[in-house]
Amino acid sequence: MTGRSFTHQGFTLWFTGLSGAGKSTISRIIEKRLREAGARVEVLDGDVVRENLSKGLGFSKEDRDINIRRIGFVCELLSRNGVIAIVAAISPYRAIREEIRERILNFVEIYVECPIDVVSERDVKGLYKKAMAGHLPQFTGVSDPYEPPLHPEVIVHSASETTEESTNKVWAKLEELGLISF
Amino acid sequence: MTGRSFTHQGFTLWFTGLSGAGKSTISRIIEKRLREAGARVEVLDGDVVRENLSKGLGFSKEDRDINIRRIGFVCELLSRNGVIAIVAAISPYRAIREEIRERILNFVEIYVECPIDVVSERDVKGLYKKAMAGHLPQFTGVSDPYEPPLHPEVIVHSASETTEESTNKVWAKLEELGLISF
Repeated sequence: MTGRSFTHQGFTLWFTGLSGAGKSTISRIIEKRLREAGARVEVLDGDVVRENLSKGLGFSKEDRDINIRRIGFVCELLSRNGVIAIVAAISPYRAIREEIRERILNFVEIYVECPIDVVSERDVKGLYKKAMAGHLPQFTGVSDPYEPPLHPEVIVHSASETTEESTNKVWAKLEELGLISF
Repeated sequence: MTGRSFTHQGFTLWFTGLSGAGKSTISRIIEKRLREAGARVEVLDGDVVRENLSKGLGFSKEDRDINIRRIGFVCELLSRNGVIAIVAAISPYRAIREEIRERILNFVEIYVECPIDVVSERDVKGLYKKAMAGHLPQFTGVSDPYEPPLHPEVIVHSASETTEESTNKVWAKLEELGLISF
């Protein structure tokens, strides 16, 4: 990126989608590109957040909403101070995503769409198998609902696009919105 | 501040002390001065944090520690991204304050010292009266311990100094540490 002047605003890049859809993969590539450009970035990974902000919370709708609200609070603080916050969290409920969208300056929602048969076939963590056998009572997409965004800023189809294509769509949207510029 | 060039690093300014000692008062003045100079500042007020990060937690040692750890996590993210985080929280336990000091880039601890007879005489919120009558079983300084810092960056004696004197001490320390400069 040498020789070019990169600037960015504070914003929140929110990846939502089923477990295994590719949220973390795409978000890590975006993070890397942003860091290489010199951006101030924080990734609020679901696991890190559960450890630091939400230990003890479960997976009921109420607990999930509390968890997402806490992540949203941190994103709000980061974004309004010029930092880019990247979140990769299943965040299955539409209403709570909309609630935090209202609170956050420059909220960019990325729906990582992937059919349930594809993610359950991949089954990276072996969780779909367990859930489908009835051993995980609150597993999103199997035994718990997932509500896709109605108007996300970007939809990524991870089953039919390459990771590079998906990443480029997100990047182009950030430029189009004027949130990053060279 | 016009005509002068102000710069700052990311750091966390942590005010600890008894309820009513003057933590919020001093921290708000510092916040105002920093904002007027053009700094990026967030105040993590005890009440705001309890609402957004720690709803449901009580005042046992364990719950207080969890609360402080969550505040510390947010301060860590802000400070390492160049933002100034200001915390005014009783934070009575030394060990947990030391724990987050280790995690945070540029941790500045301000002990707002005020004798118990002075704060209980002021009793702005009427809590000391209740606690002394035995109605608040976990009230710091009365029915719960307060462990003063052993090596804080600044000690402010709010019973014997003016607010301006206390504020200036903090400000001078920030300059001395190279965290703010003109």
